Parts: sequence; structure tokens; C-alpha cells
Amino acid sequence: MRIAIFGGDGFVGWPTALHLSNAGHDVAIIDNLSRRRIDTELGVQSLTPMDSIQERLRIWKQETDKEVVFELLDIAEEYERLKGWLGVWRPDAVVHLAQQRAAPYSMKSDRHKVYTVNNNVNATHNLLTALVELGSDAHVVHMGTMGVYGYSTIGATIPEGYLGVDVTKDDGEKVEQEILYPANPGSVYHMTKCLDQLIFQYYAKNDELRITDLHQGIVWGTHTAETRVHEQLINRFDYDGDYGTVLNRFLIQAAIGYPLTVHGTGGQTRAFIHIQDSVRCIELALTNPPQRGERTRIYNQMTETHRVRDLAELVARLVGGEIAYLPNPRKEAAENDLKVSNAGLLGLGLDPITLENGLLSELVDVARKYKHRIDSTRIPCTSAWTKEIAKDVKEVIELDQHRRTAG
Amino acid sequence: MRIAIFGGDGFVGWPTALHLSNAGHDVAIIDNLSRRRIDTELGVQSLTPMDSIQERLRIWKQETDKEVVFELLDIAEEYERLKGWLGVWRPDAVVHLAQQRAAPYSMKSDRHKVYTVNNNVNATHNLLTALVELGSDAHVVHMGTMGVYGYSTIGATIPEGYLGVDVTKDDGEKVEQEILYPANPGSVYHMTKCLDQLIFQYYAKNDELRITDLHQGIVWGTHTAETRVHEQLINRFDYDGDYGTVLNRFLIQAAIGYPLTVHGTGGQTRAFIHIQDSVRCIELALTNPPQRGERTRIYNQMTETHRVRDLAELVARLVGGEIAYLPNPRKEAAENDLKVSNAGLLGLGLDPITLENGLLSELVDVARKYKHRIDSTRIPCTSAWTKEIAKDVKEVIELDQHRRTAG
Repeated sequence: MRIAIFGGDGFVGWPTALHLSNAGHDVAIIDNLSRRRIDTELGVQSLTPMDSIQERLRIWKQETDKEVVFELLDIAEEYERLKGWLGVWRPDAVVHLAQQRAAPYSMKSDRHKVYTVNNNVNATHNLLTALVELGSDAHVVHMGTMGVYGYSTIGATIPEGYLGVDVTKDDGEKVEQEILYPANPGSVYHMTKCLDQLIFQYYAKNDELRITDLHQGIVWGTHTAETRVHEQLINRFDYDGDYGTVLNRFLIQAAIGYPLTVHGTGGQTRAFIHIQDSVRCIELALTNPPQRGERTRIYNQMTETHRVRDLAELVARLVGGEIAYLPNPRKEAAENDLKVSNAGLLGLGLDPITLENGLLSELVDVARKYKHRIDSTRIPCTSAWTKEIAKDVKEVIELDQHRRTAG
Repeated sequence: MRIAIFGGDGFVGWPTALHLSNAGHDVAIIDNLSRRRIDTELGVQSLTPMDSIQERLRIWKQETDKEVVFELLDIAEEYERLKGWLGVWRPDAVVHLAQQRAAPYSMKSDRHKVYTVNNNVNATHNLLTALVELGSDAHVVHMGTMGVYGYSTIGATIPEGYLGVDVTKDDGEKVEQEILYPANPGSVYHMTKCLDQLIFQYYAKNDELRITDLHQGIVWGTHTAETRVHEQLINRFDYDGDYGTVLNRFLIQAAIGYPLTVHGTGGQTRAFIHIQDSVRCIELALTNPPQRGERTRIYNQMTETHRVRDLAELVARLVGGEIAYLPNPRKEAAENDLKVSNAGLLGLGLDPITLENGLLSELVDVARKYKHRIDSTRIPCTSAWTKEIAKDVKEVIELDQHRRTAG
């Protein structure tokens, strides 16, 4: 298959590109390298030392004799170039990861909100419009998020994208309807993924585009089989308060003797998936495309759920370290349950990697190996969901940092 | 009240600005004048001769001694200027009409789809983000569309924005939930209004912005009490295949002896509202804002429903003329029923103007007065929903035009 990976320089995109290249597909990476620019903006960097995309691809070719091409292209801003590239390269499938993917970054300031909405919505819409214009039948596999659902509070398992409900007719009779699960995003970033869903619904209906939307949980881990092939193929590993994700952050914090930062009560239940499973799921989605005329196919791409404080305790037991309870910069329920169906990908053959597989200690090893590259002042989560919350968070974090410096 | 009207140079915006100014409010118009630029692009113009916005406002001042200020500003593209303007002018309410509003224009080509999504989404999101950033409590009244609902096929009246459904819990018990009515847009334009709904939902929840969304039907008519005050205050009147709306087009066609163009079977049932009621509804929404923390308040802004072919027959009886059945450039059901609740605005005191009130013949008089300005080659609807439909439509229209020229 000819597979174009939009956002193929990112945390999920890079191992996905290698995985699919290794599986024998003809792979192209399209990326505007925005994630590297954001590292520069924030003054942070991946814990793991990352080479340029061109150097990474040179090493991949050297190690495997497989060629992956790279095109520097901003799909949100350069519609005509995007269309031109698609018309020439003619992919059979597009893996669409070319979006700003951090909720905290999307909430940093009004500028970051405006950027996230403009970038994410136009990226998705430009891609679909270009495919229609070119008469392309390429299957689009998009990375969505579990965060589109919000949290069910009524004791019903979250289904895969579509919810069966009873609607009452004017004559009082109830009829069953299947609807897109009502969106309840928790941040501007999550909101953009809800907007994506409606754009997919429209293009699947009007133009019969074939689309799969993967509602992913929180990814943990950093290595995959292919990134282990050579040190220069290493994946990125974010630990900062904006892009670092909760389990990876706990492991890094434990590795360097920093307190495990739980925001709020830690009663939030979240869905998780290992990076190796994430790339496997994308492959499973690619090899099982919907038919033309079918509605968007939606899978919940997650393998287990955990309460945040349970994870903190698990890591503290495994690696050591104290747990610090800090104010929550997010506006969200203090505690929530979460039951999720992931029957779709399991049915396609996913064999989940769970927390117990020794991968946690591998991550601690990575963290220890590169701990000299960690700037611990960048660990706190400071991007707040509202201005009122921002005030509280700032005070406590300043106090905490002061205590740490003084002590 | 200090009221900013975003898109105040447009078909609904202009009479709204005059109506609110006349009612004693302090009114500012923000507009990028994109509608005039699109006229230039399409090579069409309003049937009625429109002066520049500055000249219109000079006449309004001269006739009423009321000042309406105008700021040339693109709210989708100039976020920082938007925020600066809002910070200085500090409106109590914003009427948000600053979006590309024609479904056919949004479907003209890939460029038009990209423009419509980029413009409409960023316009809405920039406005809300700026209000949050400024700590403004301004009430936002947005012009949405009945088209967000699609058409109910199950015999249930379309409610005002929110639908009560029964959801089945894991233990089998059913619980009632009220959800945003599932979106089912029929064009890229309509899709953007569905995206707006999710953006409103998010900002009402996270930032407690006060938002009213008016799901408007098809507007007919051109004059309001205030645009009648002076000939140079006349409202625009679109008759072309992209921006002209169905009832106004029938009246113009009848007035100039052009066949009344019904696309498809004419079995489509649509919701309608007169322009005078449209501006009254906006005023009613402004004077009845939601509380902080309340979900988006949604009203169906329409007063009656009609089947398209019934309207064509009504106009043919009233003014004369034959009906021409042409292929439908839209991808939609050939026939549909439509039952809509509009209890909200009726409850606030709306006294609907109906088709029977002599306003139809007033419109015919307007059309006859300016018939020398009509380019009849611009009447056909040629923007098609898919490339396959486009081929059919083009053939028939070329044949039809040929017959008309030859005959």
C-alpha cells in the first residue's frame, strides 16, 4: 500500500512510519515540523535526543534499505501544495496525525487557542476537500481522542463512536436511533477533535470518503520494535507540563527523584495505550477500511483504564518517590468512572500490552539514561483552563518551587 | 445597550443595525465587506442598488440623527485587531453574522469549501476567545441555521436545539438525557454552523459565556421599517443562483417573465421567515439573554414551513409565469416533511408576518422597479454538491439556456 503519514515526525507519527515501512508499505511523511517549532517556543526538548527528520530517514535507509520520503508541507496553511502533492504521490491511504495534540498547550493563552483551532480544523478539512477534488478513494485514518466523549456519568459503557438512543415521536411512540455519541470536550484541543468528527460525518455522507477515526487514550511508552533498531531512530519523550502525558511523567519524575505530581485528587479515571499498540492499531485500521458510502468507522484505541492516583501509587511502589497533590489546572470533575468498549480493535486482532509487562522499568531506564537533559522547572503543569484557575495554580506552584529551591 | 454587529453590512446585518439603532441602542458595525467582494468575484450584484456602508450610515445619520460607527475588520483573519477593538468599544452584546452564508457558494469548488470553513470557524472561535481573554460578559447572539438539523424522518417535531432521548445503562435501565440535537448538515456551509454549535457548547461550559444561537429558516423579503426610511438605505436583494434564496427568486423570476426554477421535484419542505421578523427576533434574543453558566440558548427562528413547489405555484398564481423543473444540484432527499417548534421566540412576543400579508406583491414591485439590473444568465443554480451531480446539472442548464436564447 502507498501510505502517506501526515504528522509523521511526531510522537505517534514517527514510530507509525517506521512500523508501516518495515511491514513493506511504501511510506511518505508529510510534516510541517511544527512540534519541533513548539519545542523551541516553549524552551523545552524531548528527553531523548532526536535527530532531524532527514537524518532519521537516512539512518532508517542505512539500517533497513527501506526508503521513506519526506515532504515539508503545512497542510493547514498550504492547501494548493497539499492538493498538488496528493495528486502526484496518489496514496492509497492517509494516516492523519497532523494536528496540535496537547490539551494544556491549547489552553496556554488566547493565541494558543486560536492556533489550535485554526490549525486542526483546516488540516482535517483541507485533506478531505483535496481528496474529493482529486477524485481520490484514499482511506483516511485519523487520530482522534477518547476526550471527545467527556465522561459518562450515568453508568453506561462508552461505545465506539455511536450511541443507540430512543427518540419519542409526536404520537408518543419511541423509536431507536443510532447517533454520533454526544460530544463533551474538556479543552479547546479536545473540542477540535469533536469538530473533526462532524467534518468526517459530512464528507463520508456527501462524498462517500472512506474514513476511520481512532479515539485514542493516553499513550505511554516511547520505544517500538522499529525505533529500537538504532539509537538515532529513537522516539521523542515529552516530560514537560504541556506535552508530557501523565504516566510517562510519573516515570520520569520517579527516575529523577522529583515528586510525582498529581493534579487535583487524582480521582480522574483515564484510558491508556502503549505506543507499540498505538502503531499496531493504526495498521489494523489501515488493513480493514470501510466501504465507500459507509459512515465513519470509529474505534476506541485504548487497552485499559486507570485512576490517576492509582498509577502514581503504582509508580511510587515500583521506582520509589513521594506523591505531591497539586491544584488541578483543568476544569473537570474531581473524580470520574470510565467504562469503555474497545471491541473493534480487539476483534481485528489487537493483543494488548498491559502495564505489567516490564515496559514500565524500561521507561525508567530511558529516563535515567537521559536525566542530565531534564530541566525540572519545566515539569509543573501551568496552563490553566480559566483565568480564575490560573491564579490558584500559579500561587501554589510558585510556593512549591520556592520550597524546592530553598530545601 | 452597546451592541456590536459583526457582519452588519450584509442582508440580515444591515436592517438589524438600523432596527437596533432606531430602538435607541448604541450600535457599531464590524464588517470585512466580504459580501461585496464576493459580488465582484461572481460578477453579480444586488438587484437593488446598494451604496457603500459609509454612505448608508451618512444617510442614516442625516435622516434620524443617530450615529452608527463602522470598523473595517476581518474577525477571522485579524484576531489581535478584533481583541483590541472589543477591548476599547466594550459592547454589552455582539450580534455575530460575520460568516459566509450561502450553501451553493460553499459548494462551488474546493477553494470555496476551504474559504467557508476557514472563515466561518475562525470568525466564531476568534470572537469567543477574545471575549474570554478580555473578561467580557457580552452576550453573543449568533445567526445559525435550521440546516443544522437536517430533516427528521421519524415523525418527530424538531425541538429548539436540544433533544430528549432515552439512553440504556449497562444494567438495562433507561435514563432520560437531553442532548444537542444530532447534527446532519447538507452542505459545507451548513456543516460550519454545526461546528459553531460545538464551539458554543464548549465556551458556555468552560468559560460561562452567554450565547444565544438562532437557527434561522430561509429569509424572504427585502425591506424593513428602517430600510424604507430613505432610498439609499435600501437592503440588498440577491437573485443569483448562489446567494438568491428560493422565495425571493421566484418573485423576481415571475416579475421579469423568467420561468420559476424548481430544482428537483420541489417536494422539499423548508422553513421561512420574513426579514422584518428576522430583525425582530434578534432584538428579542438580545433583550432576553441567558444567565452566566447557562448552556447555549437556542431558538428556531422561523415562522412557517412550505413545500418548494407549493410556493412556486403560489407565486405563479399571484404574478403569473410558468414553472420549470430543473435537476437538483444539491444532494438531498427529493421529498421531506418538516415540523418545527418555534415556541421560544413566540413566547418572547414574536407576532409572525406570514406570506398572506401583501408583502409578496411589494417584493414583485421591487423586482419590477429594478428589472433592468437583472442579468438573467446568472439566475440558474450551477454550484453542485458532487462532481457527478455537476455534470448532469451543467448539461441540462446549457440546453435550457440554448433553448431560451434560440426561442
